[in-house]
Amino acid sequence: MATLDLSLDAVSLTRALVDIPSVSGNEKDLADAVEAALQTLGRLEVRRDGDAVVARTNLGRDERVVLAGHLDTVPIADNVPCHDDGELLYGCGTSDMKSGVAVMLRLAESIAEPVHDLTWIFYDNEEVESSRNGLARLARNDRSLLYGDIAVLLEPTGGVVEAGCQGTMRAIVRTVGHRAHSARSWLGANAIHAAASILTRLESYAARTVDIDGCTYREGLNAVRISGGVAGNVIPDVCEVEVNFRFAPDRDAEQASEHVREVFEGFETQVTDSAAGALPGLGDPAAAAFVAALGVPVQAKLGWTDVARFAAFGIPAVNFGPGDPNLAHKREEHVRMSTIHESERVLATYLSGTAR
Amino acid sequence: MATLDLSLDAVSLTRALVDIPSVSGNEKDLADAVEAALQTLGRLEVRRDGDAVVARTNLGRDERVVLAGHLDTVPIADNVPCHDDGELLYGCGTSDMKSGVAVMLRLAESIAEPVHDLTWIFYDNEEVESSRNGLARLARNDRSLLYGDIAVLLEPTGGVVEAGCQGTMRAIVRTVGHRAHSARSWLGANAIHAAASILTRLESYAARTVDIDGCTYREGLNAVRISGGVAGNVIPDVCEVEVNFRFAPDRDAEQASEHVREVFEGFETQVTDSAAGALPGLGDPAAAAFVAALGVPVQAKLGWTDVARFAAFGIPAVNFGPGDPNLAHKREEHVRMSTIHESERVLATYLSGTAR
Repeated sequence: MATLDLSLDAVSLTRALVDIPSVSGNEKDLADAVEAALQTLGRLEVRRDGDAVVARTNLGRDERVVLAGHLDTVPIADNVPCHDDGELLYGCGTSDMKSGVAVMLRLAESIAEPVHDLTWIFYDNEEVESSRNGLARLARNDRSLLYGDIAVLLEPTGGVVEAGCQGTMRAIVRTVGHRAHSARSWLGANAIHAAASILTRLESYAARTVDIDGCTYREGLNAVRISGGVAGNVIPDVCEVEVNFRFAPDRDAEQASEHVREVFEGFETQVTDSAAGALPGLGDPAAAAFVAALGVPVQAKLGWTDVARFAAFGIPAVNFGPGDPNLAHKREEHVRMSTIHESERVLATYLSGTAR
Repeated sequence: MATLDLSLDAVSLTRALVDIPSVSGNEKDLADAVEAALQTLGRLEVRRDGDAVVARTNLGRDERVVLAGHLDTVPIADNVPCHDDGELLYGCGTSDMKSGVAVMLRLAESIAEPVHDLTWIFYDNEEVESSRNGLARLARNDRSLLYGDIAVLLEPTGGVVEAGCQGTMRAIVRTVGHRAHSARSWLGANAIHAAASILTRLESYAARTVDIDGCTYREGLNAVRISGGVAGNVIPDVCEVEVNFRFAPDRDAEQASEHVREVFEGFETQVTDSAAGALPGLGDPAAAAFVAALGVPVQAKLGWTDVARFAAFGIPAVNFGPGDPNLAHKREEHVRMSTIHESERVLATYLSGTAR
């Protein structure tokens, strides 16, 4: 069994984590190692749920802070084991988000007297469909495990606080025609040609930019897939355009669906997937205290993240982690090693209540 | 081995042919039966090439007429064996083109003293890619087998003469963008959106109608496939639209390609497949004599057929057969039984030189 030494520095711990492969659905080895290492500390209540591990202090503090991160990665692309060039550490999960998990493990080991009670959540299957998400499963199995006054996800943010998140929905916009032999095309109705207006509306779509709590959310409505066609000599009778709408958290999922239906008025539009965003919630005292303690820039989170699962339970949630979000899921994924140490330092300041 | 009795009437022979399955690539049983039946007549020179059978008279006549038809069918769709309702005969290949093949076999048996020398060509693999086409293979192996003053293909025409054929070409029109995460779509360039103008041009395309030798050819430019998309959260970097251009035979394949490139000016356009059409050639004496002898309406052939292979060798070629072209390749494929007898009757008039 793989083992983890939590007394290592955060960069060395990141290396060790990257070198234990944990592609979604195959997190067991890594979850076993994390569970064993946390048990060894002796001062945390450790629970296991599938390949998720939850470790909590029970110090009777007034507030509880949840720190969470996923153990899984996207598929490995010739980028394990990790390697570095002195400044950058390369490998699958370096940014998304084993450097964040390393910071969590270091802090769990080093902060013996936190000013708040702490809940550390390490979970599986974040990179795949929502129905498999380990955090969602934890919430179903024992929602109290997620409870806290604030939740911090150590998703890659490049060392700034990213507040809330945008919502995301997908829909299929469909055109219907009539088949015919392409040598006698006037006997049919070409469904692909009929999609011209769908693409024209997408091309000319003016996306909103919304400011909430000083964070700027920039929306986007995009085709992510198009398909149509029967055979090389047949006028196609169906064309489907799959669109992805990323929407600011001032709209809920229902309003987002309504908007997309309006954009494609006149076409059959079927919403296939929808996840509400999360308002930044920076007016909440716990969130404001977190931002003040860290003293780093605050901006909007544009991607959807599991902060929305906490937000749905009324828990303010922010993203803050050492990885670079623009490198996530890329073959050349890497993380600047100095930002791992820096993230650990500012979080330690906050958790220990030390003056900065 | 299946056997064929050429003394049966043409409808009974059509039934027998339909009930010997011969999906493209599996014509051997039927080709064996056709070859054996023609050998039995004793007055034809019979040659076999793969699953093609060529039978010729050598009577020293001034002119030679080629009559050709393919033995294969598209895949069976629960429509073999055949059945009838008293007027219509149902089954795979009834229209395309075993009723035509039955007429050929009947005439080969019954016309002992034709006014022209005759070449009967039964061939394989017409319903699949051109590289497998049995007529093309015959032409490669011994081009003299195709020689004649006129060629008649017994493809389904509903009992009228369809002259020449339109050309067909396919091209891929491609847009290229840049990938990005769909939560930050402005960092990418959406290749599907960029295809809006391709579809708009197709939707507004005004197809030509061209009259040649009294035949009206109606062109068509159509998308037959569209595809694009990487994943549900990625701005796509490529979108491909496959178009099929059916063009009148006053354009050659090169001119057709040039036209399509002009329509999609500004986009990357790659011609993937091209087959020239065939001019109706009704000014040719042999073709004019055929039309006059049959006394049936003459119109343009809009689909591409193997007449173009004869036309490429300078042989005027027409389509004339009992099947209904609109029923070809359909599950409910059928043929009106009376048209089988009628096609046999008018061709017998022409081949035997009998006054109508």
